[in-house]
Amino acid sequence: MNVTVKGRSRSYRTVSFDIANNRVRLVEQRLLPHEFRIVEVVDYRSTAEAIRDMVVRGAGAIGATAAYGLAQGVRAFRAKSLERFEAHVEKVFLTLKNARPTAVDPVNAMLGVRRSMQKGSTVPERQALALSAAQAFADADVAHCEAIGRHGAKLIRNGMRILTHCNAGWLAFVDVGSATAPMYAAKSAGRQFHVFCDETRPRSQGATLTAWELAQEGISHDIIADNAAGHLMQRGEIDLVIVGSDRVLGRTGEVANKIGTYTKAVLANRHKIPFYVAIPLSTIDWHLSSGKDIPIEERNQDEVLGAWGIASGRRTWVRVANPGSTARNPSFDVTPADLIKGIITPAGIFKPRHLWRNRAKLTDAGGATDTPGVHRSRG
Amino acid sequence: MNVTVKGRSRSYRTVSFDIANNRVRLVEQRLLPHEFRIVEVVDYRSTAEAIRDMVVRGAGAIGATAAYGLAQGVRAFRAKSLERFEAHVEKVFLTLKNARPTAVDPVNAMLGVRRSMQKGSTVPERQALALSAAQAFADADVAHCEAIGRHGAKLIRNGMRILTHCNAGWLAFVDVGSATAPMYAAKSAGRQFHVFCDETRPRSQGATLTAWELAQEGISHDIIADNAAGHLMQRGEIDLVIVGSDRVLGRTGEVANKIGTYTKAVLANRHKIPFYVAIPLSTIDWHLSSGKDIPIEERNQDEVLGAWGIASGRRTWVRVANPGSTARNPSFDVTPADLIKGIITPAGIFKPRHLWRNRAKLTDAGGATDTPGVHRSRG
Repeated sequence: MNVTVKGRSRSYRTVSFDIANNRVRLVEQRLLPHEFRIVEVVDYRSTAEAIRDMVVRGAGAIGATAAYGLAQGVRAFRAKSLERFEAHVEKVFLTLKNARPTAVDPVNAMLGVRRSMQKGSTVPERQALALSAAQAFADADVAHCEAIGRHGAKLIRNGMRILTHCNAGWLAFVDVGSATAPMYAAKSAGRQFHVFCDETRPRSQGATLTAWELAQEGISHDIIADNAAGHLMQRGEIDLVIVGSDRVLGRTGEVANKIGTYTKAVLANRHKIPFYVAIPLSTIDWHLSSGKDIPIEERNQDEVLGAWGIASGRRTWVRVANPGSTARNPSFDVTPADLIKGIITPAGIFKPRHLWRNRAKLTDAGGATDTPGVHRSRG
Repeated sequence: MNVTVKGRSRSYRTVSFDIANNRVRLVEQRLLPHEFRIVEVVDYRSTAEAIRDMVVRGAGAIGATAAYGLAQGVRAFRAKSLERFEAHVEKVFLTLKNARPTAVDPVNAMLGVRRSMQKGSTVPERQALALSAAQAFADADVAHCEAIGRHGAKLIRNGMRILTHCNAGWLAFVDVGSATAPMYAAKSAGRQFHVFCDETRPRSQGATLTAWELAQEGISHDIIADNAAGHLMQRGEIDLVIVGSDRVLGRTGEVANKIGTYTKAVLANRHKIPFYVAIPLSTIDWHLSSGKDIPIEERNQDEVLGAWGIASGRRTWVRVANPGSTARNPSFDVTPADLIKGIITPAGIFKPRHLWRNRAKLTDAGGATDTPGVHRSRG
């Protein structure tokens, strides 16, 4: 998407690759929204570190980063022995996989790259195939998000006020995003609308990343405290809700997403406001049969006890809470199908309970999740 | 309530009076929870400033502060002329009233003090009556909160997990508090329970003031992001909700309170968790006939765009949000009667729709609010 730095607008992807120098290029997300910087990662070990250290986050974005990181590591191999080459590939694969052990996207992305590589019979052939497979993975991620945008944009009419939660924007994918894709497509089609971004405590991805994305695209928006959405709905100031998801259960239509999503769905239901979830097909889990089986990560309590921001020009953490007190920090919640009007996918919009009967359409493109019991994390 | 400073526990009121030195003593609430300090305010103008600058906040607390401030100003008068004395009283009254122009409690409290003073026929008599009336007002505030505690404590059983929102604790009153009163009474009765404090963005009164209060009383508690309550309810981890209120409509049972209260009531309703509102009688508004007529203050957007906390030992504000973005900051919301199981008052627990038919019981003690169109503020 477009980013304006010092008055000049340019188009960027969250993740891209510099073929000549064998470098992975990443938007440094830990500095956003206060500074926009592209980091160039020089080898696969550093790419693994970038994943581990949250330079890059979001299912699609870390999938593509791992795919590129695998190609990067593979291309740095400097011998002819296929056997030694394959041992090297395995080492690179494991290093990248272990950078975010609970995430499923890096593994799926890299398995795809490795399958492609098998078509080559020499080291140089496999190296070239690795790169083109990684590129194809990244391009497919963008295409899927664009398709989400085309389907979802039909829901957005002139004058609408749309609520979103957390960040399921282009920073969480290679480009375009899932929940934001319909907004970008509607904006391109010339429609006028306003977005309310839940700040999304405790990590504030709405106030930081989503607000930054919308500002870059010139989309009218306001940040609100997570407490305020109910009041705005009650006063008739919200017409539509679109969020992303970390995992959608294909069998039940249940949606796991950032903590607070369930609350917004309950409120939208009470006020008869349509609530949509936008996802690539890789987010659908066809294995689990109950949302109760989705493990809910409890993150560090410091996230709740304080806040990160800028003070005197420096990134600073402040302790907000009473010094002697502790916190609970469940980071995801599960929204039942009956609260969701539709799931916006690259293959169209489906009622959550109709995913299963449409599974043929929903598994041919975009790659379904094959690994049960792991929790997809957008950070 | 008890406060432990450097290992020594002592009992304090939020507001008290030093008769010998004619000083109002206040807990300096802007420093909490990071520092506990009592400020001694030397004259009525400084007492007005303390109200204006939020050294003290909360309906009951600012009512008592204004009553004491009036007595303080009146006692500083050094002449015998009753006429000049009454002109001075009027000046003190207006100075204190204008310190928080939208609040109703200071005015009601001071009108009570002035009525009492009329029983005296000399300046010294009226000065003495002002002090005793202010003391009586403060003592009545405590007695009302204790009565709320006695009635509300019956709802708290061993092992319960209770959610509260914002701060309706002793810091918002002269002592004991409203929403916290049942907890303190149940704790005194030896019952064991756990409290979840919503952090209550954007001003974080739950994470700061309520958590601090509970820690001082040794009550088991955890702070949670405002986003987390729905998930905890869904997983069966919350048994009871008790909040305070800024205004309860006697005619309809609607409850105005800190932004986010409505959301918690909607969630509690979905999960069949009893939702109670604890108030002194002065919080009941017998005039308005619809919650839609309650003006909802929109506060400064900086509250949403950042956070106050401690960094390197200093009170610091950090900008969290994207620098180019704006925020909406509605500070209160209105919860309809059908979501509320009961209103806990000093006169007993009532269904919200039964307040009107019980208005005789609910107006004889504690002083009903007589001023329509103003919004009671606990900050």
